[in-house]
Amino acid sequence: MSHNTFGHLFRVTTFGESHGVAIGCVVDGCPPLIPLAAEDIQQDLDRRRPGQSRFTTQRQEADQVKILSGVMAHPESGVQVTTGTPIALLIENTDQRSKDYSDIKDKYRPGHADFTYESKYGIRDYRGGGRSSARETASRVAAGAVARKVIPGMTVRAALVQMGLHKIDREKWDWDEVARNPFFCPDKDKAAFFESYLDGIRKSGSSIGAVIEVVAEGVPAGLGAPIYAKLDSDLATAMMSINAVKGVEIGEGFNAAALSGEQNADEMRMGNNGPSFLSNHAGGILGGISTGQPVVVRFAVKPTSSILSPRRTIDRSGADTDIMTKGRHDPCVGIRAVPVGEAMMACVLADHLLRHRGQVG
Amino acid sequence: MSHNTFGHLFRVTTFGESHGVAIGCVVDGCPPLIPLAAEDIQQDLDRRRPGQSRFTTQRQEADQVKILSGVMAHPESGVQVTTGTPIALLIENTDQRSKDYSDIKDKYRPGHADFTYESKYGIRDYRGGGRSSARETASRVAAGAVARKVIPGMTVRAALVQMGLHKIDREKWDWDEVARNPFFCPDKDKAAFFESYLDGIRKSGSSIGAVIEVVAEGVPAGLGAPIYAKLDSDLATAMMSINAVKGVEIGEGFNAAALSGEQNADEMRMGNNGPSFLSNHAGGILGGISTGQPVVVRFAVKPTSSILSPRRTIDRSGADTDIMTKGRHDPCVGIRAVPVGEAMMACVLADHLLRHRGQVG
Amino acid sequence: MSHNTFGHLFRVTTFGESHGVAIGCVVDGCPPLIPLAAEDIQQDLDRRRPGQSRFTTQRQEADQVKILSGVMAHPESGVQVTTGTPIALLIENTDQRSKDYSDIKDKYRPGHADFTYESKYGIRDYRGGGRSSARETASRVAAGAVARKVIPGMTVRAALVQMGLHKIDREKWDWDEVARNPFFCPDKDKAAFFESYLDGIRKSGSSIGAVIEVVAEGVPAGLGAPIYAKLDSDLATAMMSINAVKGVEIGEGFNAAALSGEQNADEMRMGNNGPSFLSNHAGGILGGISTGQPVVVRFAVKPTSSILSPRRTIDRSGADTDIMTKGRHDPCVGIRAVPVGEAMMACVLADHLLRHRGQVG
Amino acid sequence: MSHNTFGHLFRVTTFGESHGVAIGCVVDGCPPLIPLAAEDIQQDLDRRRPGQSRFTTQRQEADQVKILSGVMAHPESGVQVTTGTPIALLIENTDQRSKDYSDIKDKYRPGHADFTYESKYGIRDYRGGGRSSARETASRVAAGAVARKVIPGMTVRAALVQMGLHKIDREKWDWDEVARNPFFCPDKDKAAFFESYLDGIRKSGSSIGAVIEVVAEGVPAGLGAPIYAKLDSDLATAMMSINAVKGVEIGEGFNAAALSGEQNADEMRMGNNGPSFLSNHAGGILGGISTGQPVVVRFAVKPTSSILSPRRTIDRSGADTDIMTKGRHDPCVGIRAVPVGEAMMACVLADHLLRHRGQVG
Repeated sequence: MSHNTFGHLFRVTTFGESHGVAIGCVVDGCPPLIPLAAEDIQQDLDRRRPGQSRFTTQRQEADQVKILSGVMAHPESGVQVTTGTPIALLIENTDQRSKDYSDIKDKYRPGHADFTYESKYGIRDYRGGGRSSARETASRVAAGAVARKVIPGMTVRAALVQMGLHKIDREKWDWDEVARNPFFCPDKDKAAFFESYLDGIRKSGSSIGAVIEVVAEGVPAGLGAPIYAKLDSDLATAMMSINAVKGVEIGEGFNAAALSGEQNADEMRMGNNGPSFLSNHAGGILGGISTGQPVVVRFAVKPTSSILSPRRTIDRSGADTDIMTKGRHDPCVGIRAVPVGEAMMACVLADHLLRHRGQVG
Repeated sequence: MSHNTFGHLFRVTTFGESHGVAIGCVVDGCPPLIPLAAEDIQQDLDRRRPGQSRFTTQRQEADQVKILSGVMAHPESGVQVTTGTPIALLIENTDQRSKDYSDIKDKYRPGHADFTYESKYGIRDYRGGGRSSARETASRVAAGAVARKVIPGMTVRAALVQMGLHKIDREKWDWDEVARNPFFCPDKDKAAFFESYLDGIRKSGSSIGAVIEVVAEGVPAGLGAPIYAKLDSDLATAMMSINAVKGVEIGEGFNAAALSGEQNADEMRMGNNGPSFLSNHAGGILGGISTGQPVVVRFAVKPTSSILSPRRTIDRSGADTDIMTKGRHDPCVGIRAVPVGEAMMACVLADHLLRHRGQVG
Repeated sequence: MSHNTFGHLFRVTTFGESHGVAIGCVVDGCPPLIPLAAEDIQQDLDRRRPGQSRFTTQRQEADQVKILSGVMAHPESGVQVTTGTPIALLIENTDQRSKDYSDIKDKYRPGHADFTYESKYGIRDYRGGGRSSARETASRVAAGAVARKVIPGMTVRAALVQMGLHKIDREKWDWDEVARNPFFCPDKDKAAFFESYLDGIRKSGSSIGAVIEVVAEGVPAGLGAPIYAKLDSDLATAMMSINAVKGVEIGEGFNAAALSGEQNADEMRMGNNGPSFLSNHAGGILGGISTGQPVVVRFAVKPTSSILSPRRTIDRSGADTDIMTKGRHDPCVGIRAVPVGEAMMACVLADHLLRHRGQVG
Repeated sequence: MSHNTFGHLFRVTTFGESHGVAIGCVVDGCPPLIPLAAEDIQQDLDRRRPGQSRFTTQRQEADQVKILSGVMAHPESGVQVTTGTPIALLIENTDQRSKDYSDIKDKYRPGHADFTYESKYGIRDYRGGGRSSARETASRVAAGAVARKVIPGMTVRAALVQMGLHKIDREKWDWDEVARNPFFCPDKDKAAFFESYLDGIRKSGSSIGAVIEVVAEGVPAGLGAPIYAKLDSDLATAMMSINAVKGVEIGEGFNAAALSGEQNADEMRMGNNGPSFLSNHAGGILGGISTGQPVVVRFAVKPTSSILSPRRTIDRSGADTDIMTKGRHDPCVGIRAVPVGEAMMACVLADHLLRHRGQVG
């Protein structure tokens, strides 16, 4: 990872600001001859797109992706495939509402990156947060759609498993449910509850945090490159780099601190299809290398700091002042982080498949 | 991060196995003219060294570090300083007890990296875990001792804040206490409790997890390079790469999921020494960039899987079997992770100071 | 350098094919607050643009660059400046003449990358060479225009110093002359000669090689990071990565093989403005680090393999056949490599300035 | 390439100074299960070792390599093999003659890195050149010995093809001859000539440059990753990073500038063993990707600046002075660069094999 690039062999470089001309990414190192059409990417983008329910920001963005390079019609089959060269993906910004930013232009919004960007660069893009906006994550989702195609037989899915203090009931987990509610929630009953719960928060102008769980199935054993490119440590950096994420855990995660060695270790037995584990406390990773079990990652998303209550802050001149966010915002930014988490998981796994193949063949 | 190297401008490459000739590291990119003696490094190594209490592995290793390169006596002052060239640090293995490994050589220990290393490489070093051994972390501590010197005025400290279900009382936090008990625990009373608690676990041949908190003070605002080299995301990968770590969080961490926007955002006021925050829920990082407040990271360490109770597993031939760990092991590997966490924090911050200076001057 | 990215702190990622939708690049790690307008970049692009004389390919491309991100109007001055975030530059392909490629689609053109791309990827973009086309170098020139602004007081210029067997007369070197002839030739008389010489080659459907010299003045002493990021070795890779380049040399270059130690070493004397060298055989670099003298690099460009005479080759089915290039091509591709060489020099130096500042401050 | 590391998947990090405790390297990313004994490495080191004839420095160094990590006896065969973990190689310095450096300690030797290291770092290791000493190349040779084993069926050989103005006769090229004379010269007659020629230079206290050619056979088609990891551009940086190298060329190299398209392009025909080229002007690389033909690289080595004639220079205080090198030195450093060139070629090819396998499978 370096500045605006992540990945080693399957590398993604993103660019663009919330209110600039366009955002996008360059996916480099993708294997050749993989069928890839704009629709494959659009599908995933549509799941992340804002303005799809009253529970996410009302900004209207078509988020139409264009493939600028890296693909061509296969000379024999005619199917559009990757060529092994960099795949540039472009998403134009269409709804950069010519809003009046005079009220926040010179103030640092508490909990935002305003103060730190200006501390670092001596300048900050106050228009919708500029580069620090969650809009950047659309580029990740686009890259992730490419990554999904790199590992045959792999499925990467994510779900919201907690909002505020309310956790889902894992007994009721139903992956099909995730697509049926605006929260990507796998527990039907909890989804129903979230509807009114989040409405309350939204109407009061407040916001709330969430926990997302990402699960990758069909990951072959052997991915991950110790010691400093462990699969879990690359997943940690990938998830933590998503806007507003404050914690990442693998398998049992923080709960492992409370377990004994007897409780935590996953015993093994020989199964019909090779070695099998009797549990998955490890979340599919041991010693930084995938075990062949599902890879399970969770991350915590803080409540957005854009709330309607006035907060104490300072302005660029150093004077004390108050600030209040107006306009369209997400009461629970964790919701739209669900497809982003999937994308990051897919990118990390694709990268590690290539790296593993490179070293071991 | 790549294979066995981490960092971008301040780069650390480690090598060595538990039962090989030696372990060590190469610290590359260190600024020149920094006073550096072997004793500076030895001090930190001694804090991590095994066999210092009955609560850590009884392996006896002097862990004497030698500086092989990258320093010389300053031509004027005569003080040994860095020269800007790579600093190679070597620690010989002295207690590679010629143990009989026949009972584990062909079996995969549940919860260990045995199965995954062999899946990946077609071979594994069964002698003490080889490269996957926590012994590798001595190299990190050595590198961290160099990193500490790169940021003037910075203090990096860590403490054990939870063992099993038992959390410390934050009201009783006393940094001086950390050096006084074998658990690096800042709460005197809890440390006393841990003594008997861990003795019980040790005697029963079991093990337990822990949570470590690392705090860096004196970190200037502006460190961290969005979007994919955010300070928090680099800290996440650094901590997650430590043996047995299963979760990482910054500031409020997972707790942030349960907070509202009002509760979580840190308000600002102008202070006598510039901008000041009225709280530090963010853990010193906003938008991936340091705020100038203390940087606060916590990580969860799973219980070691080396326990005395027999566990179900398979052997290399694919037959079902049982395994039981004999010999010297840590009842709570989290304890020795405390100085390792400090080292990783120091390395990440040193790297980011150089990166920031590179881009912004 | 990695796949389609070069540079370490000042990083450039390019994308795009000769006959795709667009080409472009992402410049990452640029310092903030540098004034940057599209015109600054357009100027350099215009110097590289094809179709400006009968001596370069007749392809008509406006090569209009758009800045998609990474800049904004400074809140005080209103001047458009860099923000420290990635600068995405886009150049649309407008003259992708819907040519009939049936005659070369299945044949490997000798001296081209046709065979090797297909060997590597199992597919190649036969439309104008796809990614292997010199069109990619427009992205480099765009990035170089940004790089020029990173080192204050630096001037990077290049000139064609040899075409075929004909070398310029160094006594007649006049930088002003470079802009006055279509060859970027600093020797007025030789430029006049090249006019008829290259016309002869062009009319005969042949092509010829060239040597380009790039000179950077105002480079501070101390840039370059031994041992594997030496300034000369980074320049070597930068120049060798340009299409059709087959050799790179610094200062005396290959001529140094024929010199004695007495002849080659640059003696020193104390000058009015600090240390001064009495000659510059070293080309401004000693031990991989800049001396403060002008940095001098030369590179050899092979004759383009696209010529009108039929050549023996094979086709994709493995049958022997002949091939002849039709259509618009460069009789001396070395000419358009001149601004590309400048751009690569500027990018390498900008990167090394940031790296040096990172380590040494 | 970054600081003291080169390679991407097959990565080499070197450390150590001429007169420090030891030099060495860490080879990371090597595939597992490759037989590797210290003797395999020692063989190559012995070819580079100084003091083997009167034509190289008389410094006596045993250059005994120790493998510190990354290998173990295979559990079944008992043969020592790589494990996939980092291979640390150590070479102790034994002949750090306690020489009096007072005469050069404060002066900058013309043509050496003295002035630039001090400009960069504010300090330089005057003892034998410190990190800038050619002694560092022993580490490269050690790494290269490992790299040779990564590509099955590959042979990498090098030879000295020019000394001063005297080029070998290519008609007389005999690889067997290379091992029979102290110059690694493939032309028996020229080797005899060099004996007296270099004796004259040696006795007069002067020095002379040379050109080395490195040839790799058995390189599969498809290695090299455009655009910024082209095989030729990675070879250029690798060779240029060797001490005293001032120029690098591939195939026809600078000679290509004087050729026409007809002369330079390598025609193809279908051979019994697949596609075959009728010539190899390209030096085995087209579009940055290997063609399957021998990869041919040449590099020019300048004459060492350590000569007996007094030269004008300045000292650290800025005063004009003279300097004269005393003691043991190489009259033609190009000689010992021959095995170093082989090592760099082997490392680059090994790295690219792994990278290619990673992306394409």
